[in-house]
Amino acid sequence: MPITEVPRGLAGVVVTDTALGDVRGREGFYHYRQFSAVELAGSRSFEDVWHLMFRGALPDAAQRAAFTAETAALRRLPADVRDALPAIARSCAPAGPLAGLRTALSLLGASAGLRPLYDTDAARREADALAACAAVPTLLTALHRLGRGLAPVEPRDDLSYAANYLYMLDGREPEPRRARAIERYLISTVDHGFNASTFTARVIASTGADLVACLGGAVGALSGPLHGGAPSRALDTLDAIGTPDRIDPWIRERVLAGDRIMGFGHPVYRTEDPRSRMLRTIAQDFGGPLVDLAVEVEGKVEAILAELKPGRELHTNVEFYAGVVMELCGLPREMFTPTFCAARVIGWSANILEQAEDSKIIRPAARYVGPPPPQPVPAAPDL
Amino acid sequence: MPITEVPRGLAGVVVTDTALGDVRGREGFYHYRQFSAVELAGSRSFEDVWHLMFRGALPDAAQRAAFTAETAALRRLPADVRDALPAIARSCAPAGPLAGLRTALSLLGASAGLRPLYDTDAARREADALAACAAVPTLLTALHRLGRGLAPVEPRDDLSYAANYLYMLDGREPEPRRARAIERYLISTVDHGFNASTFTARVIASTGADLVACLGGAVGALSGPLHGGAPSRALDTLDAIGTPDRIDPWIRERVLAGDRIMGFGHPVYRTEDPRSRMLRTIAQDFGGPLVDLAVEVEGKVEAILAELKPGRELHTNVEFYAGVVMELCGLPREMFTPTFCAARVIGWSANILEQAEDSKIIRPAARYVGPPPPQPVPAAPDL
Repeated sequence: MPITEVPRGLAGVVVTDTALGDVRGREGFYHYRQFSAVELAGSRSFEDVWHLMFRGALPDAAQRAAFTAETAALRRLPADVRDALPAIARSCAPAGPLAGLRTALSLLGASAGLRPLYDTDAARREADALAACAAVPTLLTALHRLGRGLAPVEPRDDLSYAANYLYMLDGREPEPRRARAIERYLISTVDHGFNASTFTARVIASTGADLVACLGGAVGALSGPLHGGAPSRALDTLDAIGTPDRIDPWIRERVLAGDRIMGFGHPVYRTEDPRSRMLRTIAQDFGGPLVDLAVEVEGKVEAILAELKPGRELHTNVEFYAGVVMELCGLPREMFTPTFCAARVIGWSANILEQAEDSKIIRPAARYVGPPPPQPVPAAPDL
Repeated sequence: MPITEVPRGLAGVVVTDTALGDVRGREGFYHYRQFSAVELAGSRSFEDVWHLMFRGALPDAAQRAAFTAETAALRRLPADVRDALPAIARSCAPAGPLAGLRTALSLLGASAGLRPLYDTDAARREADALAACAAVPTLLTALHRLGRGLAPVEPRDDLSYAANYLYMLDGREPEPRRARAIERYLISTVDHGFNASTFTARVIASTGADLVACLGGAVGALSGPLHGGAPSRALDTLDAIGTPDRIDPWIRERVLAGDRIMGFGHPVYRTEDPRSRMLRTIAQDFGGPLVDLAVEVEGKVEAILAELKPGRELHTNVEFYAGVVMELCGLPREMFTPTFCAARVIGWSANILEQAEDSKIIRPAARYVGPPPPQPVPAAPDL
């Protein structure tokens, strides 16, 4: 097989065609199918966007009603999975909620007897994906509550995806303003180009494995610190700074020590992250001291970074205001990344469904750089 | 970012350097580090090869003794994981043993509080990998027995990895000949170039996620029908043929219908698969009617394929005689692929440990081919 040399980490190497969306880093723009993701987040429901990603078009009124009802009916967990959650919550406590989700999703898919993508038709694959996605908020919130000694809250099918998620977290129906803020965050996080977890999901899908085999790999990749997607880290920065007068010395010290400032910089965007802009607006609609501090930190950090690292465009990324918005909506901090997951599972699944239409396995090569074989195997000490 | 066009499925695209081994498809040769894998399988223990993969060199007598004792001591499961296995076995029964392994491994790693690869040093990473690998046979055999209503058999630390695996399956200490045959099979299966599950493990590792996040993705990829690694399928072919006189019509019918003959052909080898050659010899040492049938089927199929598909080199692959050897050693057929896993987990882990030394995330690109954005978002039916 001829060997093809490419940039490290496959940067810029085109693995596949997709009709799901893309990121235009230079323009500060990203889209789901043919629509601006930020515009969708401004005017559409999460279910609308889910429909768009899975079925290729925004729903009309009848489709929306049917799709919303269909997915809401899938929120309840099968009894065996529900019964296993307390033990999973206990065992996964040391490793955190993504390890719990990874385990519970694996169990859920196995319990449903998911067939390999390779052996199923498109309708069956979509049905499996709808079921898995609809169950993710139920799994996440149940594991979270069990970890605190609380009984899980059963899902309600009369609430939107976003409102039901908040409801299952604390058992109270959320104010519409908070539900809508989280819904806009969730919509903005459904997909974002060909990131490492999405790529992982597609590699596994390319072997023809079942849906949760792919989703489990994606959750695993998302849990990697180099993947990003940890909005709590940026909020930790705000906590550490504490008050506006401490911004300047705190940031200068970190930058001069060569530390990364969490919540700033993105591998793709050279402009402001469009998600950041939208989430700032949402945060400012809430207002309050945390938002004031965040806006002040943003301005000062950008000024200091421009002074200390001239020529590099460093702006807030999605993590910065996502953390602020989730805090304002009352989400516990350890649920920030899981909440990201509750949206991204739609994007992963849409990618898996798209990959399943392609029969070609994704299987690159490695270059052997060790001592030349075959060397004679030394005699064993004994056998 | 400049876009690089490459062959579909990244075929032949070099993702990384590795010192772990390679496959030379034209020569019918593969190696672990600088040694022929088949030669290692002929003269070394599984633990020796595990040491070679993890630590870069075959062990001397003292190292072998220490490594064997160290890994044997890791076979027992923590109480919480052991207690969760009956429920996992029940829920995963519809989806099969790889789904059970995927779930149980995820739980095991979470319960151990595995840290991200990114946050750990090489010694910690290796210790985590040793623990996970040592536990895989215990998990697999326990899930298998529980699925049949039998209590798991506790591991013994005075048996080799291979003998203990067979022992935990049925509670009887295996004959040395069978233990050695399985040990040679396991050694030959530890690694095999840059296959899809190994690549999956490395992609997840490149995000800095924890070890079992990577292994879970790899198990998921292995479960894909396009990955291969299902030695039971070839044995099903032998069963379907039944007797030597039925070989000719059975094979001709399948080939003329365009069906693939399971156990024949490999994407990389153009010669005989070196694993196949070794496993045939092991099978012939056992002898008996199944081996006679397999050898006769092999000869006739190659002749018929040469006649019907001239110019294509189609030989038996590893699945063909692996199934025969596992059947001769008394392994239940549904444990064939899990047994493959019990070896390959060493290769996956060695790849994960190697990837963890590389700070570059593996993140390729996709090409958007849908309608050009941004199109205006139509007004929502209601909100």
